[in-house]
Amino acid sequence: MKKLMNKPDDVLRGQLDGLAKAHSDLLQVHFDPTYIYRSDAPVKNKVAVISGGGSGHEPLHGGYVGKGMLDAACPGEIFTSPTPDQMFEAAKKVHAGAGILNIVKNYTGDVMNFEMAADMARAEGMKVHNIIIDDDVAVKDSLYTAGRRGVGTTVLAEKIVGAAAEAGYELNNLADLCRKINLNGRSMGMALTPCITPGSGKPSFDLADDEIEIGIGIHGEPGVRRTNIKPADEIVEEMMLAIMENIEYTRTLREWSDNQNDWIDVEASDPPFNTGDNVIAFVNSMGGTPISELYGVYRKVAEICDEKGLKIVRKLIGPYITSIEMQGCSITLLKVDDEMIRLWDAPVKTPALKWGI
Amino acid sequence: MKKLMNKPDDVLRGQLDGLAKAHSDLLQVHFDPTYIYRSDAPVKNKVAVISGGGSGHEPLHGGYVGKGMLDAACPGEIFTSPTPDQMFEAAKKVHAGAGILNIVKNYTGDVMNFEMAADMARAEGMKVHNIIIDDDVAVKDSLYTAGRRGVGTTVLAEKIVGAAAEAGYELNNLADLCRKINLNGRSMGMALTPCITPGSGKPSFDLADDEIEIGIGIHGEPGVRRTNIKPADEIVEEMMLAIMENIEYTRTLREWSDNQNDWIDVEASDPPFNTGDNVIAFVNSMGGTPISELYGVYRKVAEICDEKGLKIVRKLIGPYITSIEMQGCSITLLKVDDEMIRLWDAPVKTPALKWGI
Repeated sequence: MKKLMNKPDDVLRGQLDGLAKAHSDLLQVHFDPTYIYRSDAPVKNKVAVISGGGSGHEPLHGGYVGKGMLDAACPGEIFTSPTPDQMFEAAKKVHAGAGILNIVKNYTGDVMNFEMAADMARAEGMKVHNIIIDDDVAVKDSLYTAGRRGVGTTVLAEKIVGAAAEAGYELNNLADLCRKINLNGRSMGMALTPCITPGSGKPSFDLADDEIEIGIGIHGEPGVRRTNIKPADEIVEEMMLAIMENIEYTRTLREWSDNQNDWIDVEASDPPFNTGDNVIAFVNSMGGTPISELYGVYRKVAEICDEKGLKIVRKLIGPYITSIEMQGCSITLLKVDDEMIRLWDAPVKTPALKWGI
Repeated sequence: MKKLMNKPDDVLRGQLDGLAKAHSDLLQVHFDPTYIYRSDAPVKNKVAVISGGGSGHEPLHGGYVGKGMLDAACPGEIFTSPTPDQMFEAAKKVHAGAGILNIVKNYTGDVMNFEMAADMARAEGMKVHNIIIDDDVAVKDSLYTAGRRGVGTTVLAEKIVGAAAEAGYELNNLADLCRKINLNGRSMGMALTPCITPGSGKPSFDLADDEIEIGIGIHGEPGVRRTNIKPADEIVEEMMLAIMENIEYTRTLREWSDNQNDWIDVEASDPPFNTGDNVIAFVNSMGGTPISELYGVYRKVAEICDEKGLKIVRKLIGPYITSIEMQGCSITLLKVDDEMIRLWDAPVKTPALKWGI
C-alpha cells in the first residue's frame, strides 16, 4: 500500500488536523468525539445544517463546513458510520435555537445513528428533522443499504439547503426543500480501479486489468455489471440512460413527524426528467481520476442533455464525493427550479466550494 | 490502460470541447491552431497574460483562463510543447494594444517556442516580454530542461500576475512582478506511482510496489532519489529541507531587453527564506492523490513552517498542476509581500480558481 500517510491508525487524525490548520478562518475540529464545526457557530437565528458519514469521501463532508453550507460535519472512521454521540455533541455545539436539519446519506448505519442522535437532541428540547438522500439509481438495495444509496446529490443538497438556511428559511421549509432536492436528483457511478483502505491495506475489490464496473457505490459496493473497458462515450451513454430512465421509482423513507411525535415512513417518488427541464450537471471524480478526463465525460453528458432537451443551467466538475484514490467517475443530474438556482448561486465559503465571497 | 477516453488520438480534443461547453461564460477554445481564450478578450487597455505548455497537467493552464488570471492558454499535445504558431495566434486574438506577458515554464521546447512566438508578435508591432519560471529545487538540469524545471510557482504566478494585469499594471511592471515571484518561489515534488500517457499506453517510468521517487518532475522526469515508502512526515521533511535550504542558487534566464532590442541572459538568484517571512503554502496533488492525503501533508508543512518562523498567510491545497493520474504531491512555498497578498486575494473567476466574484 502506497499512500501519503504515517500510520494507518492516525490517518484520519492527521488529515483533520491539516484541515483545521489550513482553514482556521472557517472551521474548527473537535476531537473525542470528532466533529468539524463552523468557527462562528452557533449562528444566531439560523437553522443548523449538519451532515456526516464515513470518512474516505473527502471533501465530503468536512470540506463543506463554512458560511453558506454546513454548520457541522461528523466524520466516522474510513467507510464507517459516525456514532450518535458525535452527531449529538455536534448538534449541541452548533444549535442556535432555530432547530437542526440533518442531511443523511442512505446507508443503514448512518440512518440509524442520525435517528438516535435526533432523538437525543429532541430530548434536550431541540427541533430536529432528518432528510435522507437516496439518489443512486444503480441498485435498489446494496451492501450497506436498504433501498438506493445516497451519493452525488448530497453535495448539491448541502450547497442549496445551506444557502437557504443562511437566508433564514425555517426548519420545516428547509426539510421540504431538501426532500425535493433528493427526489429531483439522480446519480450513477463507475469504477476503473478499486481503492485501498489504510486499515486493510488491500484493494476494496478486484477488477481485471481490462475491466471496469458500472454502477459502483462510493465504498466499492458492487455495481450493476462488469464489462471490458470501452470508449468513455459508451460508458457515459449507459450511465445517462439509467439516470434519465422514464420511470418513477416509489419507495418509503424514514422521517420525523412533529404531528405524530414519532418516526414515520413517508412515500417518496422521483419525477422523471422532461424536455425543457433545467438541470445542474455534476461530473464527479472518484478521487484518482484527473479533472482532464472529467471534462471528456462532461462533453458527452452535455451532448446527451442537448439531445434530450435538458438545459444544463449550472455545472460542477471535480472531485467532490470520492472513494479515497479510486479511479472512476459519477454523474448526477439535479432538476432545478428558479429558487434552487438562486440558492446554488448564493455566496459560499468552505474549503472545497467557494464563490461570491 | 484504463482511462475515461475514447481513442488516444482524440483525447485532448474531447477534453477541450468539454472545457469549452462547461465554461462558455468564461472562455472559448479555438482549434487549428489550438488555444483557449477569455470570451471577453481582448480586454481594453489590459496587458494580455498568456501561458501554455504540454497538456496532461490540468487544470494548468486552460483551467486558469478567465477574469483575473490568464487571457489565453496554449495547450500542446500531452507532455509536448505547444508550437510558436499556437502562441502567436493566441497573442493576436487577445492583444489589446497594451502588450503581452508570456509566463513560460522552464522546459527547453517551451522556452524556445515562446521566444519564437514573441519574435513573431514583435514583428507585428506588439510589445512582448517572456518570464521564465524555474522554481523546482530538486534538480539543476533534467530530461527536458536546461537548469531547474518550472512547476508549482507557475500557478501562483498566473494568479498574482493575472490580478495585477486586471488592476492595470503596465507591461514592464508586470514582468518585474512575475520575475520576483519566480525568484521567491521554490517547489519540490514526489511520486508514489507513474502515470500513463494515452498515446503510449505505458507507465512513464517504473516504480516498485514499495518504492517512491523524491524530486520527480511533472512529466515523470527522474528525481533526486528513490527510496522505500516511508511515513508522510519524513517525506515532507525531506522536501521542505530542500525547499528551505539556506542557499542562493544563481543562474541565468533568457529575457527580452527593450534597450538592447535582443534576447539577453539575465542573472537570477533566489533569496533564502528567513524567520518572519510571510509565505503562501501550496500543497498540490500530482493528479491521482486524493485531497484527504494532501491535508495530512499540509499538517506537516504547517508544523515545519511554524518551527522555522515562516508565517503561512495564504494556502492552496488540491490538484492544480498535475501529471495525468500520477499519485504523489508537490510542495511550493512562495515568499510574499503585502502587494502579492493583495493581488492573491483579488477576485478571480476561472474554471479552476474562483473567489470574490
